[in-house]
Amino acid sequence: MQNPIDPTLDLVIERRIDVPPGPLWACWTRPELMERWFCPVPWKMTDIELDLRPGGHFRGVIRGPGGEAMPNVGCYLEVLSERRLVWTDALTGGFRPKPEPFMTGIITFDPIPGGTLYRAVALHADAETRAKHEAMGFHEGWGKATDQLAALARTI
Amino acid sequence: MQNPIDPTLDLVIERRIDVPPGPLWACWTRPELMERWFCPVPWKMTDIELDLRPGGHFRGVIRGPGGEAMPNVGCYLEVLSERRLVWTDALTGGFRPKPEPFMTGIITFDPIPGGTLYRAVALHADAETRAKHEAMGFHEGWGKATDQLAALARTI
Repeated sequence: MQNPIDPTLDLVIERRIDVPPGPLWACWTRPELMERWFCPVPWKMTDIELDLRPGGHFRGVIRGPGGEAMPNVGCYLEVLSERRLVWTDALTGGFRPKPEPFMTGIITFDPIPGGTLYRAVALHADAETRAKHEAMGFHEGWGKATDQLAALARTI
Repeated sequence: MQNPIDPTLDLVIERRIDVPPGPLWACWTRPELMERWFCPVPWKMTDIELDLRPGGHFRGVIRGPGGEAMPNVGCYLEVLSERRLVWTDALTGGFRPKPEPFMTGIITFDPIPGGTLYRAVALHADAETRAKHEAMGFHEGWGKATDQLAALARTI
């Protein structure tokens, strides 16, 4: 189920999490749960709409502590319940191209004894975009969000 | 099966063709057939590789009568045999983003008495890209290619 990773173009978070895939999947696919973990606090994503099917849109607004508000829009590409979720910001709903593509996300939830091998991969078009994403704080930001995800998943 | 069309962003070719969906699908999905119709003569696409599955790449080289050679690369998004084929040049194989996205193509093959209602829709990110594609000769080029497609499909 896992794509080969290109270390020159991709960024990866991998964790063994002590909850089964189901609750983690729920946190990724139910707006009221996603709102509670997707951005590292004090940032938050609100106004989340998820049309969970290939070609379906996702939409949200990432809000910062200083009143920042950035739309986050994209398109689901693969939706394999409790196993694999793929989306991109290179497209919007209905597979329409979108200017300034940044990344595709591939999240896999592999069941293992005692929980889930959770992997989040960000694919970029080129090494420059990967470096920019890393410099924006990919590891810190996605790492903290993954801590929040695991903590929330343990409660549901 | 058909997406709603946005006339401010999309370009459309629609034809009733007197062959069933099967041969038209074959012309879209077999490299040795695709090479014979995809570009309006005297242009031609060669070196075609089609990995026909969501996330699979397509690759080809569009060659002109003056020795022009332009790579044509993208990613399949939906592959529904003899009914619907969707791909985009906003992504490459494995759903990786690609710089300078231009269009998504949605081809539908609807069986009708006596043949196929064939529709090719080009989706663009904005009105400017749509206008550019139209000015590049979308209607003439895709129209001529569709004539070539129908003529080839009648022979197989």
